[in-house]
Amino acid sequence: MQFASRLDNVETSAIRELFKLLGTPGIISFAGGFPDSAMFDVKGLKEAANRALDQEAGGALQYGATEGYEPLRKQLSAFMKTKGVEVDPSGLIVTTGSQQALDLLGKTMISPGDKVIVEGPTFLATIQCFRLYGAHLISAPVDANGVKTDELEKLIAEHKPKFVYLIPTFGNPSGAMLSLERRKKVLEMAVKYQTLIVEDDPYGDLYFGEAPPPSILSLSQSVPGSREFIAHCGSLSKVLSPGLRIGWMIAPAELLAKATMCKQFSDAHTSTFAQATAAQYLQSGRMPATLAHVRKVYGERAQAMGAALQRELGDAISFTQPAGGLFFWARLTGANGKLADANVLAQRAIAQLVAFVPGAPFFAENPDVATLRLSFATANVEKIEEGIARLGKAL
Amino acid sequence: MQFASRLDNVETSAIRELFKLLGTPGIISFAGGFPDSAMFDVKGLKEAANRALDQEAGGALQYGATEGYEPLRKQLSAFMKTKGVEVDPSGLIVTTGSQQALDLLGKTMISPGDKVIVEGPTFLATIQCFRLYGAHLISAPVDANGVKTDELEKLIAEHKPKFVYLIPTFGNPSGAMLSLERRKKVLEMAVKYQTLIVEDDPYGDLYFGEAPPPSILSLSQSVPGSREFIAHCGSLSKVLSPGLRIGWMIAPAELLAKATMCKQFSDAHTSTFAQATAAQYLQSGRMPATLAHVRKVYGERAQAMGAALQRELGDAISFTQPAGGLFFWARLTGANGKLADANVLAQRAIAQLVAFVPGAPFFAENPDVATLRLSFATANVEKIEEGIARLGKAL
Repeated sequence: MQFASRLDNVETSAIRELFKLLGTPGIISFAGGFPDSAMFDVKGLKEAANRALDQEAGGALQYGATEGYEPLRKQLSAFMKTKGVEVDPSGLIVTTGSQQALDLLGKTMISPGDKVIVEGPTFLATIQCFRLYGAHLISAPVDANGVKTDELEKLIAEHKPKFVYLIPTFGNPSGAMLSLERRKKVLEMAVKYQTLIVEDDPYGDLYFGEAPPPSILSLSQSVPGSREFIAHCGSLSKVLSPGLRIGWMIAPAELLAKATMCKQFSDAHTSTFAQATAAQYLQSGRMPATLAHVRKVYGERAQAMGAALQRELGDAISFTQPAGGLFFWARLTGANGKLADANVLAQRAIAQLVAFVPGAPFFAENPDVATLRLSFATANVEKIEEGIARLGKAL
Repeated sequence: MQFASRLDNVETSAIRELFKLLGTPGIISFAGGFPDSAMFDVKGLKEAANRALDQEAGGALQYGATEGYEPLRKQLSAFMKTKGVEVDPSGLIVTTGSQQALDLLGKTMISPGDKVIVEGPTFLATIQCFRLYGAHLISAPVDANGVKTDELEKLIAEHKPKFVYLIPTFGNPSGAMLSLERRKKVLEMAVKYQTLIVEDDPYGDLYFGEAPPPSILSLSQSVPGSREFIAHCGSLSKVLSPGLRIGWMIAPAELLAKATMCKQFSDAHTSTFAQATAAQYLQSGRMPATLAHVRKVYGERAQAMGAALQRELGDAISFTQPAGGLFFWARLTGANGKLADANVLAQRAIAQLVAFVPGAPFFAENPDVATLRLSFATANVEKIEEGIARLGKAL
């Protein structure tokens, strides 16, 4: 069977092989990218689903508008308002998880050979998703304050990309938080170079201390002319439940209309049953308490992992303590002749019954093999301490 | 903003403009392609959703395997067995409605310029979906017994298509049922020309009298070598609820693996919440009674519409009484100097407060402007009689 030529652009084996080993009994895994099931507000979601079927069964079970189920669009508009963004319900579309927002951006915007700038490192599924549409990806370097805007500006000027894709707040895998100053610079560049900026923001609500700076979308309201160059992707997956597959995209009207047309032929619409349930949940007013709970638990786990990494690996590893999100992004320093290849460490770690993800596959170009990603989301403090101790032994 | 070149291949305005008029007060619509909300087994689905959240909240709310939620794959395997198909749960993947199965086939199989043979007429969203991947569509003619296999064979031999896409049972819009003899011919052609056949089957369970012939997939078990050339798309949308967005695809292992990889970057996975609910529903044993109910109600409506069309439009219209599905496919004959252009009739009909869809957009090439599609699914018998009387006046 001869498959489409676009499949030649993707390579998925790297992490897949590792994940096959995660079933090993007794393993402590920091490899996943998912939230802890124990955080799910099952009671609240159950009530929401029942209200949806009691009050609006016709809407919840029938075909719906491709743009999204109207009551959910209204609730998401209100939710965005709590985060400083004024957007009419008609200014957003509901997507099947924010992964679909990325797919629709690819389908709508990328012709084969088009250049797209991403962070180095960036979300693995973004790399593959855009490459399936033939994108030529260019990496902009990242430090503890997010993407380096000076370097980014040079790349935009040189490559004139179709768009720039950023995860500015507690990004996967970098965990970094783009500073307020750099956010403003990104907006100025959007206007100066007339370049679309895609802000992917699934983690912005998961902060542990002070709230992060406002989103790029929110700040665009104070940088004249910039709003029309911003697309923003949101998600309920990390804060409420990934299984609902509820994401959304806010974008200029013309882009939103084209993305909606593409979505019509991708999956017609996102499950109205899941949408009605999410709308009822948001309306119930339980979200603030849910957010407070996940922030507290993940914050404690992040604290524990940072302390354990310092205690167990010392100067053989460098990292910035994340202020939110689900991930530590770390680098093996090679100090004292210790290992500096995270791929080799990953193999040794499995033998010690602890797992993480090497960082190299997260780079669209110029992979740094000394890097690694550790999730603190799904193991409790005790397991985190035990797991990092095993990692120290593996090193 | 400059969009991807693939968007130049699609045209969606034709029916969209008509649908804007459907909100007119007092209109009787035969234009939709959806089932009647009053048929939904709300009680059964509510019980299923509650059981899913009571018994398996972790699975129902967490990220899941791209291939599908294992309990649902098992139930769908058992469901297919009741329809004469032996398929292991690992031999099918769950899709976000069968629309997504079409999208994944396009993404996996179609390189720009590749030829694909479809029925003329065929499902509108299939035409647009495949064209977004750059397909060059070729139409095979259809009569009351489905696609004309002699013509199809000539087209396959001439064009060597990437695959052939058929809706053999009560197709949208043709309503036709491919005869047993022709099904066998299709299978022989698949082997002879080593050509993938895609069988889209969302309507096969909606028969009004005798059951239709077995699906092409089912029959492939008795035509040596043919099974490896069959992909089959199923859906719960027409028989249970479209809002769940639960479809599935059965295909050769290599194709299924590639489609799964594409799905990973399209939406990660179908809502596990919807999947767990569907699995619980299928397990509950309510499906046979639900099917019996929808068959009875839609059968009565189809009967009423056929009688009314003959009574009110006489020899100005020709059609075959459908033996299942949701649609009448009809042709204006122009007899006695009556109108023979369904686009003009559609405008006049709106003025008489009745709506249907002109047939021309359902043709990938060589549109027949005398054709039209009428859905009998959502209006009761009384409304159907009133609506067809209005249509007679419009003509």
